[in-house]
Order: sequence, then C-alpha cells, then structure tokens
Amino acid sequence: MKRREFLGAVAGATAATALTACGSGEDNTQAAQAMQPQKTYEWKMVTTWPKNFPGLGTGANNIAKLINEMSGGRIKVKVYGAGELVGAFEVFDAVSQGNAQLGHAGAYYWKGKIPSAAFFSSVPFGLTAQEMNAWLYYGGGMELWEEAYKPFGLIPNPGGNSGTQMGGWFNKEINSLDDLKGLKMRMPGLGGEVLKRAGGIPVTLPGGELFPSLQSGALDATEWVGPYNDLAFGLYKVAKYYYTPGWHEPGTTMECMINEKAFNELPEDLQSIVRNALKVANADMLAEYTARNQQALQTLINKHKVELRHFPDEVLIELKKISEQVIEEEAKADPLSEKVWASQKAFKEQVSQWTAVSEGAFLKARSL
Amino acid sequence: MKRREFLGAVAGATAATALTACGSGEDNTQAAQAMQPQKTYEWKMVTTWPKNFPGLGTGANNIAKLINEMSGGRIKVKVYGAGELVGAFEVFDAVSQGNAQLGHAGAYYWKGKIPSAAFFSSVPFGLTAQEMNAWLYYGGGMELWEEAYKPFGLIPNPGGNSGTQMGGWFNKEINSLDDLKGLKMRMPGLGGEVLKRAGGIPVTLPGGELFPSLQSGALDATEWVGPYNDLAFGLYKVAKYYYTPGWHEPGTTMECMINEKAFNELPEDLQSIVRNALKVANADMLAEYTARNQQALQTLINKHKVELRHFPDEVLIELKKISEQVIEEEAKADPLSEKVWASQKAFKEQVSQWTAVSEGAFLKARSL
Repeated sequence: MKRREFLGAVAGATAATALTACGSGEDNTQAAQAMQPQKTYEWKMVTTWPKNFPGLGTGANNIAKLINEMSGGRIKVKVYGAGELVGAFEVFDAVSQGNAQLGHAGAYYWKGKIPSAAFFSSVPFGLTAQEMNAWLYYGGGMELWEEAYKPFGLIPNPGGNSGTQMGGWFNKEINSLDDLKGLKMRMPGLGGEVLKRAGGIPVTLPGGELFPSLQSGALDATEWVGPYNDLAFGLYKVAKYYYTPGWHEPGTTMECMINEKAFNELPEDLQSIVRNALKVANADMLAEYTARNQQALQTLINKHKVELRHFPDEVLIELKKISEQVIEEEAKADPLSEKVWASQKAFKEQVSQWTAVSEGAFLKARSL
Repeated sequence: MKRREFLGAVAGATAATALTACGSGEDNTQAAQAMQPQKTYEWKMVTTWPKNFPGLGTGANNIAKLINEMSGGRIKVKVYGAGELVGAFEVFDAVSQGNAQLGHAGAYYWKGKIPSAAFFSSVPFGLTAQEMNAWLYYGGGMELWEEAYKPFGLIPNPGGNSGTQMGGWFNKEINSLDDLKGLKMRMPGLGGEVLKRAGGIPVTLPGGELFPSLQSGALDATEWVGPYNDLAFGLYKVAKYYYTPGWHEPGTTMECMINEKAFNELPEDLQSIVRNALKVANADMLAEYTARNQQALQTLINKHKVELRHFPDEVLIELKKISEQVIEEEAKADPLSEKVWASQKAFKEQVSQWTAVSEGAFLKARSL
C-alpha cells in the first residue's frame, strides 16, 4: 500500500469514528460526505498535437489546468504531446485500453475504425462551430456520439473548436476543379473523400509532419487549421497561396475522449468537474482562435507576403455537389453513420435557416 | 455553534491527529488539503427574468445546478425570479449590498449607474456572440468589465448569450427612418439611445411587462430576444410584423455578477468551480438558443401567421450611421466608456475582417 492510500484509509476510519460519536441526524449524511477522505487520481492525457502547440496543445493543457483547479488537486492530469507516450494516431487505442484516461484529438482521425466519427468533427458544407454545439448539446448529437464510442469503452466530449478553418495552402492557383486533379493534399475525414472524388489524392498526416512533407514534395498541398496555427508551423515558407473558405471544415470540433472505466470510478462531483472542464475548454478554444486568427493572417499577408485567395464560386458549387454525393454514400455504407447523418442533416436544414435570418442578416447589415 | 460546524471542527481535528501520527512527508500537505473539513455555503441568485423563463431563467437555473453538482453540494445556490426577492432592476444593488451572492441579468440595464456597462452586453452593429467571447476572454474585455464593477464590490462574468437577436415587433411596416419617429418602443442600452436619435421614444421595461404594455398601447413596438423567447411571451398576439436583423443586439452577453466579498470567502477550488460554471452556462445558453430559435420561428410564421420582415438596407445604413455617432458621443462623455470603446472598437475592426474571410465566406459558399 502506498503512503497516500494508507493515509486515505486512516482518515476514512477516523472520520467514521467522529461521526459515530456525534450520534445521528439529518445533517450527518451531508457531513459524512463532506468529511469523506478524498481519494486523489493521477490521470494521463495523450494528444494528437505537438506538446504546447498554440490553440490545440494549449487547449489540452487548459483542460488539465481546469480539472486540477476545480478539483482542488484531487485529479491531477498530466498532458503528453504526440509521440511522447504514444504516437499521434494511437491516441484512440491508448485511451480505449486504459493506458491513458483522456485523449485530445479530432474525431475524424478515427474514421477508419468508426465510420460515423467524421460527423462529430466537421462535415463539408456542414455546421458552423455555434451550430455544431447546438446540434451536439440540444439536437441529439451527443447521444449518437456516445453510441458510436461506447463499444470502445470511451466517453466522447467536445473539447475545443477551431471555428471555420481555412481552405489550405497551395503552390498553384485553383481556378477550376481540374486544378485539384492529381494533387497530393493532406485532408482528413469526409473532406478527404470529397477531394478523392474530385480527382485529388488525400493524405492523412499528423500536423507535425506537414511542413517537412510539403518541403520534400511528398505533399503538393495541405490544409491544417487557420492562420494562428498555420503561421506557427511556418507553412508560408513552403506554399504561396492561402485559400478560403475551409468548405471541408466549417467549424471543427476537437474531442476529448474519456476512458469510461476511469470515469465511472470517480465520485459524482469529480465526474461533473471533468465533464464541465471539457465544456469550458470547448468554448475557450473557439474564443482564442477567433481572437488570434486575424492578427496571424495580417502577419502572413503583410510580413510573409502570402497571397490570400478565395475559391471561385464555380469550384465551390462543384465541391458542394460532390460533398452531398460522398456524404450520402458514406452514410448509406454504415448503419450508425446513416442514423447520425439523418439527425445532423435535419438539424442543419433548420438551423441554417435561422443562421441566415439572424447572424447572416446581421453580418450583411454590418458590412453595408 | 451549529451541528454542521461542530462536526466540521471535530473532523478537522481528527484528520490533523491522523496526519501527525503518520509523520511528515511530501504527500502530507496534499492529504491534509484533501481532508479539510468542508464548509458549506448557502447562496442566493437574484435575476431580472421571470422564474424559469425559457433560455434566460432556465440559464440561471443551469448555473445553480452546475455549481451544486461540481461542488458536491458544498455551495447550494437558490434562484429567485424577478420580483421574488427583489424587483428585476434591483438585482445590481442586491448583489452589490450582499443581500444575494449572485445576480443574473444584462449589463445594459445598469447603464444609468455605470455608463460603460452597455458595452459589455451588446453594442449596435457591434460584435457577434463568438466575437464578444473572443474580446472578453482574449481581447482585454474582462479586465475592463472588472474595472467597471469593482467600485460596487462586484465581480462581473458573462453568464449566457442569446446570439443575434431579432429586430423587434411592430404593428406597422418600417420602410424608412420616418416610420420610427414618435414610436414608443422598448429598447434598452445603446440601441435605445440610437432609437431616440432616430426620433423614437425608447423605454426600458423588464420582459414580464412587455405583453401588457403592448396590449394596453403604452408601447407601440418592442424588441425582446428572439423567436424562442418572444413566442413564450405571446408577443405575436399583440404585434403583426417581426423584423430582422437585431442590429442593436448582434450577440447579447447576459451577465452573472458575483458579490466580491462572498467570492473571496470561498476556498480556491470553489472559486474556480463558480467561475467555470458561469463559463459553461455562457456557452450552453448560446447552444440552446441556436437549436431552438428556428423551431419557434416556424411556429410563429406557420401557426400564428406572423409576418417576417427584413429592415430595408437604407434604414440599416441610416441606423448604422446614427449608431456610430451615438456610441462615439456616449464614449466621450465618460472616461471609462472611452477606454472600453477604444478597446472594443479596435478589436471589432480586426475580428470583423476575420469573420468575413472565414465564417462569412463559408456561409456564402454554403448558400450557393
């Protein structure tokens, strides 16, 4: 028995004795709870991001800090960057097997294992960050995500959002769909499937490998996140054109999965603290990206002479058509994907009308 | 001494004895913290909303529930609707004087007391919900809000967001600025000042008084929040036209102020729990409104035959011009307002470019 466990056992026995001596009464249950010897938990969080990477890695650190603070140190979370404890794409298995209790990643990385996972990160021409949170928390999305991860002993949670991403880095202009043909481009999830249908060659790589792959010519083009992150990776050094919008990732939800067994061992207050720390981190990350992307974009344009480009409407219209086909086919190929897409599609149809009538109409008015 | 305090004292002493018996070591500090007898706190939250009012009142209830759960019952928050403990517009004073520990409201209600308060709720043609969170948490907004509330012994916090609101309920069409002249319309904050400059007569009333005031003719028109809330108040029964966009409230931050003295008495873990419960509630409310407004709008249009109207561009252009003048004048009249507006204006100039390049460009692509 470790000293900490021994101390816990002693305190537990002593607290029980104190209670017995005081007799019984309605206050005792509460007092007994309040005086429980408080077990402490040492948790590991593995991540798909480089350690301390701006926005994503620091978002994972934020979760650890929130849990530590709110629990008064009863849970201590140690964060591992990609490759420190397990590789970037081994995060899912590590948490599923209980080698770590938390895993910070993007659900679309697990598309090969769980086809429906892609719908919980971002869908081409799908939901914005605000709409995605609305679907997950008030539109039935969370229940479906839980169903998808349950067989792996995992509890899914949103754990950050990048907002609308950028369309990617290219070394040639994209003037028509033909310009995507034969293009080796890093693009995960459903966006990658759309790129493939459009004649491109989608590649899934962890963020840390993008710069060397573009530099060596192993990749022709890449998307990553947005100005704040893309600047940090120095992608402007190996690509000339920066395209918008990120049609493939209009509001990407990062995830923080929890090992179910470890979660179930926590007392209720700590379970609530863990769940709500993730909710805070989900909102914090979006606020941070929203605040920092424009400054980074200015640096990219003014200092590094990056050329900002908008995809032509004709290209977007084609990509949207292909996206609809690809998503319907992907959904039909897997029963859970079909159920998830039916829910998200119905939600999207109604919420996108509200967005257009409210925030869309306001943004137009603000720019008049 | 109450029994609970007595029990706490016994447990504290006993825990200390147990520790002493075990000798000293690096684990002891932690164990001692974990075994502290845990004091409980009974807090009151007063609100400017009718008790359990959808979105706003339930958002306040959500805060109480989150604090109760995460603290394992160490803080118990009891929520009071408008008029139950104090009147809707007495919330600020009640929390400032310590008669309640928490107050859920909108900062623009205190504009008469603190001119700069309006900038922390919503500004005409200002920031959207996502941009507002970015400014508050990552753009210096929170520090300024704290400066504004400090002299009143209050700690401000965002505690919910409605998203972009609707433009209001009218019984005549608004085809030109002349149609606003002489109009008695409920509109709080800076929006009300703009309405006044445009020739209207702004009135500040709590939500619960809107329906009877419109019915009696004391008001000609009103804005409230959006479809979900406006449907709940039955405003469609006393007004015909429902206008968008809510140029005056593009993303209204609700507030949950904390009595500073009560907050400082909490141990650090409970302070963190209170702060983060408010952050969760801030995000939750926006997700809920985003999910529910469209369904309510459909009910208003299809079932109650409300006519949805867009303000004409010429009216919006005029209102935007007036807004700029009014805001600059309001800012100049008060040193803190000037400082707050300088910060928010600079942030708005940069963030609105990013919104246009990213989410704005995406929303356009999605609608192609």
